[in-house]
Amino acid sequence: MDQQKFNALLAELKELDYSKMYNEDFFLTWEKSDDELKAVWTVADLLRTLREGNISTKVFDSGLGISIFRDNSTRTRFSFASACNLLGLEVQDLDEGKSQIAHGETVRETANMISFMADVIGIRDDMYIGKGNAYMHAVSDAVQEGNRDGVLEQRPTLVNLQCDIDHPTQCMADMAHLIHQFGGMENLKGKKVAMTWAYSPSYGKPLSVPQGVIGLFTRLGMDVVLAHPEGYEVMSEVEEVAKANAAKSGGSFTKVKTMEEAFRDADIVYPKSWAPFAAMEERTDLYGKGDFDGIHELEQRLLAQNASHKDWTCSEEMMKLTKNGKALYLHCLPADITGVSCEAGEVDASVFDRYRVPLYQQASFKPYVIAAMILLSKFPHPVQLLQKLAEQGKERKKEN
Amino acid sequence: MDQQKFNALLAELKELDYSKMYNEDFFLTWEKSDDELKAVWTVADLLRTLREGNISTKVFDSGLGISIFRDNSTRTRFSFASACNLLGLEVQDLDEGKSQIAHGETVRETANMISFMADVIGIRDDMYIGKGNAYMHAVSDAVQEGNRDGVLEQRPTLVNLQCDIDHPTQCMADMAHLIHQFGGMENLKGKKVAMTWAYSPSYGKPLSVPQGVIGLFTRLGMDVVLAHPEGYEVMSEVEEVAKANAAKSGGSFTKVKTMEEAFRDADIVYPKSWAPFAAMEERTDLYGKGDFDGIHELEQRLLAQNASHKDWTCSEEMMKLTKNGKALYLHCLPADITGVSCEAGEVDASVFDRYRVPLYQQASFKPYVIAAMILLSKFPHPVQLLQKLAEQGKERKKEN
Amino acid sequence: MDQQKFNALLAELKELDYSKMYNEDFFLTWEKSDDELKAVWTVADLLRTLREGNISTKVFDSGLGISIFRDNSTRTRFSFASACNLLGLEVQDLDEGKSQIAHGETVRETANMISFMADVIGIRDDMYIGKGNAYMHAVSDAVQEGNRDGVLEQRPTLVNLQCDIDHPTQCMADMAHLIHQFGGMENLKGKKVAMTWAYSPSYGKPLSVPQGVIGLFTRLGMDVVLAHPEGYEVMSEVEEVAKANAAKSGGSFTKVKTMEEAFRDADIVYPKSWAPFAAMEERTDLYGKGDFDGIHELEQRLLAQNASHKDWTCSEEMMKLTKNGKALYLHCLPADITGVSCEAGEVDASVFDRYRVPLYQQASFKPYVIAAMILLSKFPHPVQLLQKLAEQGKERKKEN
Repeated sequence: MDQQKFNALLAELKELDYSKMYNEDFFLTWEKSDDELKAVWTVADLLRTLREGNISTKVFDSGLGISIFRDNSTRTRFSFASACNLLGLEVQDLDEGKSQIAHGETVRETANMISFMADVIGIRDDMYIGKGNAYMHAVSDAVQEGNRDGVLEQRPTLVNLQCDIDHPTQCMADMAHLIHQFGGMENLKGKKVAMTWAYSPSYGKPLSVPQGVIGLFTRLGMDVVLAHPEGYEVMSEVEEVAKANAAKSGGSFTKVKTMEEAFRDADIVYPKSWAPFAAMEERTDLYGKGDFDGIHELEQRLLAQNASHKDWTCSEEMMKLTKNGKALYLHCLPADITGVSCEAGEVDASVFDRYRVPLYQQASFKPYVIAAMILLSKFPHPVQLLQKLAEQGKERKKEN
Repeated sequence: MDQQKFNALLAELKELDYSKMYNEDFFLTWEKSDDELKAVWTVADLLRTLREGNISTKVFDSGLGISIFRDNSTRTRFSFASACNLLGLEVQDLDEGKSQIAHGETVRETANMISFMADVIGIRDDMYIGKGNAYMHAVSDAVQEGNRDGVLEQRPTLVNLQCDIDHPTQCMADMAHLIHQFGGMENLKGKKVAMTWAYSPSYGKPLSVPQGVIGLFTRLGMDVVLAHPEGYEVMSEVEEVAKANAAKSGGSFTKVKTMEEAFRDADIVYPKSWAPFAAMEERTDLYGKGDFDGIHELEQRLLAQNASHKDWTCSEEMMKLTKNGKALYLHCLPADITGVSCEAGEVDASVFDRYRVPLYQQASFKPYVIAAMILLSKFPHPVQLLQKLAEQGKERKKEN
Repeated sequence: MDQQKFNALLAELKELDYSKMYNEDFFLTWEKSDDELKAVWTVADLLRTLREGNISTKVFDSGLGISIFRDNSTRTRFSFASACNLLGLEVQDLDEGKSQIAHGETVRETANMISFMADVIGIRDDMYIGKGNAYMHAVSDAVQEGNRDGVLEQRPTLVNLQCDIDHPTQCMADMAHLIHQFGGMENLKGKKVAMTWAYSPSYGKPLSVPQGVIGLFTRLGMDVVLAHPEGYEVMSEVEEVAKANAAKSGGSFTKVKTMEEAFRDADIVYPKSWAPFAAMEERTDLYGKGDFDGIHELEQRLLAQNASHKDWTCSEEMMKLTKNGKALYLHCLPADITGVSCEAGEVDASVFDRYRVPLYQQASFKPYVIAAMILLSKFPHPVQLLQKLAEQGKERKKEN
């Protein structure tokens, strides 16, 4: 193991105050302090250093990690499973139907019935505006009650694997990537980030990524620019968060009307499709009423609306506008690549190709970020715990 | 860990004879001796004491727990998964189609092919009268043969997670709950239990719970009263079991014709919907013939029959009839709650609300009951084993 | 543990050169040297000896085994899960749709996104001629790149769980069975094996078993005879492999036109249905075009073609032709048994019954063969590793 790197990271961790994360959930990044976010990145790096050094990070001898996905999800599912495995938890998936919006009694009961041995619950519920985050809170409240009432021996903590408001594991992984690419958090100050809408032939992609990005990146003193065609507004509450963050961090948050303006001199670009917030609200209502004709009609309308903005694409021409033509390209994957996965999409194939390695590296932080969130929530003394793991040096894979 | 409690429980366990459980299956509670059932409850409590004390109960370093569910099952699935995880077994689910009634060669072959590393197989198969329990025996016979023939290194033992006759893990958990609520088995003698049918807008709920309850509760010297509308008879063989149990235990088993009579002065009530046995037999035949029109017709007929008994509901008025109006309300969950999950159902919302905490606690015994069944079946010397676990005191979750 | 047996096997392993297996995949048996195949069988036996002796073979403390199945598969799925569990890896299944033939960018990306903690990837993809093996190579290339680029800490190695060309885990298990049945590899020289087509009422069974058998059994100095009705040719490339193998091993590879001729004086028979190679190529094209009418028409044509060869069945009469009427009957299971699983099928019920125990034993080698492939690929010094496991003697299941 790289002991020097490990020691340096541990020294950083010692300086931070993350005591309130113990026995708590992780819902939205803006509900956490700067120190708490730094603790996540630092613990993620510590866990990665241990694993790269073939040292076991199993802090649970047994126990379950429950995953609840209301939408298909290969990437996040495997990231969560990897994080749980890394710490010694076995994953059990709860498959709830997509269409069914659970509530009240059912949520309370199910949350307890699946949590008898659960240390953590990871939920992805991004489909319905105003519902996903609320559902997560309902689950968390239920298991806290269950723990208080002697039903559950432990209080399972919750990790938001994507809701209608934020996608904290994605955005924290994105930022971990930036910290590594730019050689430290301090180097991100003053960097320009373009979070822009981009055309995709598909429909209804969640808003949690753009919202999560503006809600998080503005905390690092960056100049965050949001751009989208008219009608593709994100939640105004999150824009308020971004503004407040920027004011505090010494960065900025601005909105512009074209991709060109956003890309100009940008250090980092994050072009990505999403659905209009208002349309998602409408869809949520239609689902609530079971109005499937209405849903179909809405879908057609949105696809037509999308199609009028095909020029919003991360082309080579667009990339030339960025700082020295070399901005770092980010995407949460999978991207709609023009000429590869679709006729016209979010990004040119040649741009995507050039950034494939960093894109995969970006994704590779997610399991560690999730594991760090779990560890900081489940253990009161992470510094001592990680030190103990390093000292014991139990092999992850037997050597001989 | 609560060492005093642990020692007391261990002392109880030492007095019991459960030697015949070793290397055996758990099909029906009435196939087990009183000592064997007591051993299950005691080991369940011992395991819970260890886990609450953060002591690892992993008695398997590797190995699989196979689950076979012919019906959707969140609660039982997670209870089985929790029990396996608690002991160190990894769960693998076998998804067999619901409609397919496997038999003969296929059962024998599949049972072996999925059991190469299996220490335990948990099966839920309650849909077809005369089939579920028989299927479990076929699986058990097959893997015993496989073990004898050198195909399987170990003999996987079987836990009945609900069949057409009994639901032993549920009823043993129910009873564990009663033992705790009433402060010991000895305090249950002479208590009146009302196992009653209750109206539900759904159709075809299994008979295994009422059958399991009358087959088990009569063994503890309780006065068990069964009540249901005409036409909702349970298996007569199980009623015979209940009578014989009562005669032996000094309790009683009686049948009455109204919910009121059953509830009057009851200490414990268990109002719950089930399907008429005769109708379930008919359905089994129809499925066998693939007569889906007949099944639909039967369903309509049964729903109409149900609807004429909406007065069988655990209302506040009904509860007032019980001992001091305060009988303990039991349910295996999920319940059909009037005004919550349906317009009219098994129980009033206010009754359910008042008993939510005990209901969840009732459910919380199931993983430990299942784990105890597995442990008693897989290990010849549970006292020594549990003592060793306590002495080694390996942390379930790392402390620092 | 049977220490003597263990020592003898370890001594055999020491004599073999399998150094090139380290950090490599297992695609086709004929890409491996004789020593490498022997190493697989020997390590499989060593692992089995340890497990039978209740000694833990967990060489991974954590880590994932990813399984990708494009076709339903109970047997292979559980064999892979058993192998992973035996070594300490947790299985995560990736469910990709059957109809979707992934390619290019998607394969590369998905392979990395699911492999963050993956030590091994097992793939079954046998449906499309010219695609399955190619897909596996694409996955392997992708994760090697990912490992080189710092995306993945480890390079997950790949085990072919059945492709369009070979079914190495099945055929290696078949051969392990023969080695045990005949008392050693050296006793197989000169034995006659009949790999023959057999009638089944189903359609489109993969060619990977007959191809795998002729590609592997010809290496052991056996006289391998392939027989099938006209039109049921296997891949000619694999026949060339079989010829070359036979020439080198001192065995033979011949093709005959009747089941009778193949069975005459055979020591071992492997009668099994498969689809014509040319028809499978046609089907692959039709799927590529999305021509479902064409697929249906092809299916009808093939079923009719099959039906004209009902006399190709492993009847009692046919078995009488074999050496002393007592050839060892092999099948990869499940078999289509006449009068049991179908009206007319691959084998008489009485023949199948007589060989049930050896058939199940044959299958029981598969988890160990897969585990051996993983172990030889992930660990540079298997002799030392296995010795260490034996010396440490950690109990698989706690004793007391």
